[in-house]
Amino acid sequence: MTMKNPLLVPELRTMLAGGDTDALRDFCETLHPAVVAELASALSEEDAWAVLTHADLPLRAEIFSHMADDIQADIIATLHRQDIARLMTEMPPDDRADLFRRLPEDSREAVLPALAQAEREDIRRLASYEEGTAGAAMTSDYATLGPHLTAAQAIERLREIAPDRETIYYAYVVDENRRLLGFVSLKDLIVAKRDARVSDLMHRDAVSARVDDDQEDAARKIQKYDLLALPVIDGADALVGIVTYDDAIDIITQEHTEDMEKFMAIAGSHEEAMYMRTPPWVHFRNRAPWVAALAVLGLVSGFIVQSFEGLLMQFAILAAFMPMVADTGGNTGSQSATLVIRALALREIAPRDALRILFKEFQVAILLALLLGMLAFGRVVLFGGGSSMPLNYPLATIGIAIAIALGLQVVTSTLIGAVLPLAAARAKLDPAVVASPALTTAVDITGLLIYFTTAKILLGI
Amino acid sequence: MTMKNPLLVPELRTMLAGGDTDALRDFCETLHPAVVAELASALSEEDAWAVLTHADLPLRAEIFSHMADDIQADIIATLHRQDIARLMTEMPPDDRADLFRRLPEDSREAVLPALAQAEREDIRRLASYEEGTAGAAMTSDYATLGPHLTAAQAIERLREIAPDRETIYYAYVVDENRRLLGFVSLKDLIVAKRDARVSDLMHRDAVSARVDDDQEDAARKIQKYDLLALPVIDGADALVGIVTYDDAIDIITQEHTEDMEKFMAIAGSHEEAMYMRTPPWVHFRNRAPWVAALAVLGLVSGFIVQSFEGLLMQFAILAAFMPMVADTGGNTGSQSATLVIRALALREIAPRDALRILFKEFQVAILLALLLGMLAFGRVVLFGGGSSMPLNYPLATIGIAIAIALGLQVVTSTLIGAVLPLAAARAKLDPAVVASPALTTAVDITGLLIYFTTAKILLGI
Repeated sequence: MTMKNPLLVPELRTMLAGGDTDALRDFCETLHPAVVAELASALSEEDAWAVLTHADLPLRAEIFSHMADDIQADIIATLHRQDIARLMTEMPPDDRADLFRRLPEDSREAVLPALAQAEREDIRRLASYEEGTAGAAMTSDYATLGPHLTAAQAIERLREIAPDRETIYYAYVVDENRRLLGFVSLKDLIVAKRDARVSDLMHRDAVSARVDDDQEDAARKIQKYDLLALPVIDGADALVGIVTYDDAIDIITQEHTEDMEKFMAIAGSHEEAMYMRTPPWVHFRNRAPWVAALAVLGLVSGFIVQSFEGLLMQFAILAAFMPMVADTGGNTGSQSATLVIRALALREIAPRDALRILFKEFQVAILLALLLGMLAFGRVVLFGGGSSMPLNYPLATIGIAIAIALGLQVVTSTLIGAVLPLAAARAKLDPAVVASPALTTAVDITGLLIYFTTAKILLGI
Repeated sequence: MTMKNPLLVPELRTMLAGGDTDALRDFCETLHPAVVAELASALSEEDAWAVLTHADLPLRAEIFSHMADDIQADIIATLHRQDIARLMTEMPPDDRADLFRRLPEDSREAVLPALAQAEREDIRRLASYEEGTAGAAMTSDYATLGPHLTAAQAIERLREIAPDRETIYYAYVVDENRRLLGFVSLKDLIVAKRDARVSDLMHRDAVSARVDDDQEDAARKIQKYDLLALPVIDGADALVGIVTYDDAIDIITQEHTEDMEKFMAIAGSHEEAMYMRTPPWVHFRNRAPWVAALAVLGLVSGFIVQSFEGLLMQFAILAAFMPMVADTGGNTGSQSATLVIRALALREIAPRDALRILFKEFQVAILLALLLGMLAFGRVVLFGGGSSMPLNYPLATIGIAIAIALGLQVVTSTLIGAVLPLAAARAKLDPAVVASPALTTAVDITGLLIYFTTAKILLGI
């Protein structure tokens, strides 16, 4: 298998320009569909489609399914509805429903009549689940077996339906109302005696998800139980689809990206748009709201500083410690927030553990406060002499005041960092949403208030 | 399947206290091994082991393999070497080698002689690969087939070895030197005619990893090509193991945790220690070095402020904008760093795209700078009147100076945010390591220099 090789993109362009049909067909059929998708994605929409037309329809649909969502949408926008319908017919049901969900309203209306009845109903059903749920992530391509089949009959049936199914390694055993009775793996069937009954071989009480469960919870079940696929059931306990392990990997990766974006204050378009394909003004539009909102919050810090201007004019050295107070608060707050968010995400802790968590963070914070307080005191006493201050004011007093102020800031921001995600989790919000830099800006404000108030009291102004 | 249920832990304690052997055996055999592992992990090491002894040896090893690394280590520390050896014999080879790698030196020496020759060699070999490589993540439990078998013979062979292998859904075809010729899936074999040859059915040019490849690269291949397992080959191109999809999910989750820790300045112990099980002083030890190092860097900011003390005493309003300058630099820098790191991780961009990336970030930065500059100007003109400044100094001039300084800071920190991960990637370091808060502290320093220097020049002091 040739791995990612950007040198192939110019070759591809040459083949297209020369109309070299044989070479293009060979290209599509020899390389892995994921690689063809990757290389064709580097071309314009029209050229990418021109490459894909050299693959026969099933392969074309497979390559297309490997492309990123936004590239799929761009290509679809250049096609006739008959081409779209033919392509969609061959796509895996879950990818097809995803694509349909992202089509503009008028394209949806145009495409639906061109599809066969069965696909039309399947799309309507899958596309009806809200994005981010197990229902929206599932596929309807799964194998079912009746409980009374023998192992040999079951293998024969799986063999017949294999070409149309995403996986035949798990088969689900359902009753006449499609209620899930259990599942058998192909391994179970192969190892079993030929005349053993599916009802005796099957694993009862299969782990499952409900259609409206969060897709990340479904993916985490696949991870926890080392599953190849997770059955999804509706409100009447009937089996309606499966989430496969490869979709679980993509869901987990997508959730990581979203977490990172939340942490780093990038507004949540949450589409899988690729960095280089996104024009600068779209990047600007995604980032500006957060940066501007935080800057407005930053103005609050400014007003606090302004209100302590008198103190600052007397003890100019206080200004020198403002960056350290702000950064240290942000850093310690982010640390506790990250650990708590992570532990919540991995289900290690629950919101009801709040008091134990806060006590633990309090102990950690005291230790950090002692360390950083001593550091600040040393800095003031060693290098603070040059600053302007009231005549003969003892440097050690200023050092103690700054050390205590910094220590209080560390304790407060560590606790705020731990409390916010716990509160968000209890309110059924995603804990990651409260993490830095919103947190950083929040502890900046509390930090400056603590810093100047403490200094004012201790310096006796 | 009963899902996570903390109510079962007290029941478990009662069963242990009452010596209720039948109930404990039933508990181990009825629940999913992952659930038994989770519930037993809430007990002391001795109690957890007491629960596990009620499962027969293969099930005991399976439950144990589902436990977190640090809990496994704690339990092992309480056991006799014969118990350890029996347990290890039944564990999957990759989990066994992982556990061995984490044993203290003297325990390793004690355990090895108690193992059978084959396991001993297997452990030595697997444990010899450096942690974080595909070699360390792989298992030696895989199925191989000769190329001349028929489909029916191949299925029969897979059926025989199925109980001992992690997966029989992929089988690897090797020559007499164990060089990888290709692979067949069990689905291929089942669908094929009974007398078709494996050599005709197999997929040639299988995607593979080398033993010393990064484990994350191996996991990303599994994701990209939707594989159930990825073969791993050594320097002589011989097949030595496979990385399975379930390990790939765990690797991706683990890398994400490490990325978050790096982002949030938590020193990289990178063990899977659980939040609640870690005592406060260990949390302190993990976090303090970063916080302290950044605080020391923060002192540099302090010296810069101190050196501009004269300017600050004349234009006190400059102090009010210090937090906004610092935070905005940190936020815009983090945004560009996050996007670049993410795009690098997903292989969307490569270090050689540096110039195009920097040009794109420059365009975004100009737009952000204009927006934030206007915001700062408005703030100064509207609310700056109360600050002390040289008599009759025009407020608009101060506003323009602060807006320009802030704009320069936004452009600089956006570019720094994009450059650092690219430079790290080119130097073969993990790009995530340079991300915030090290970045935040760095742009604080450049930001304050830019801010005060610009203000000084424009205000003509």
